[in-house]
Amino acid sequence: MKKVDHIGIAVKKIESALSYYIETLGLTCIGIEEVESQKVKVAFLDAGNIKFELLEPMDETSPVAKFIEKRGEGIHHIAFGVTDIRSRMAELEEKGVLLLQDEPKNGAGGAEVAFLHPKSSYGVLYELCDKGE
Amino acid sequence: MKKVDHIGIAVKKIESALSYYIETLGLTCIGIEEVESQKVKVAFLDAGNIKFELLEPMDETSPVAKFIEKRGEGIHHIAFGVTDIRSRMAELEEKGVLLLQDEPKNGAGGAEVAFLHPKSSYGVLYELCDKGE
Repeated sequence: MKKVDHIGIAVKKIESALSYYIETLGLTCIGIEEVESQKVKVAFLDAGNIKFELLEPMDETSPVAKFIEKRGEGIHHIAFGVTDIRSRMAELEEKGVLLLQDEPKNGAGGAEVAFLHPKSSYGVLYELCDKGE
Repeated sequence: MKKVDHIGIAVKKIESALSYYIETLGLTCIGIEEVESQKVKVAFLDAGNIKFELLEPMDETSPVAKFIEKRGEGIHHIAFGVTDIRSRMAELEEKGVLLLQDEPKNGAGGAEVAFLHPKSSYGVLYELCDKGE
């Protein structure tokens, strides 16, 4: 866990949030795609040393839709860039960390991702993000 | 707004959260201090390209105490490193962004800080953090 890859931010509509990030905060959009496994449309913004990932739910079954329903728009998760994600998952489980899945899922940008349960992370949803780099 | 300085994370007790971040996630603590203006005790962790700032309320009047009461422990804010904070604040106000104060306050590490209202930032509490560098 040496570096933060991105911060995930839940929004209702990417289009309107994007104009705030680009025109008001001066960030640059570096890509938009849909992530089927999480039922989200995502937009990546270059925030200099890290990226912001805006997350718009594709339908009401998306975990991001449930997040917004419960807490409103806002910061959703912090993603660590990792290598060898399966080993990292095993190490964390050995240390008593609760993971949200047994196997990595397909994330944005072709990455393999896995989430740590906020219960064992003092309320923070952490993601492991392995881009095979 | 070119770089993220740190992510603020609200915790009930720094001591117990710190052991998770150090022993389980492998991060390094780089300082602990009290910030009177926000009534918080803070611990900074080196997360590689950015810092994590654990925030423990010093008493129930702290904005962080109110945050935890309402939403539980979790991610509290994202801080951009800026220079010339008063100019940045004026620019944002001109663009229609709501700020939480008219003048910068004293933050951790001798920084001058100001917060953007989550209402105009799609639910995210952003901080401007000027270390005079």
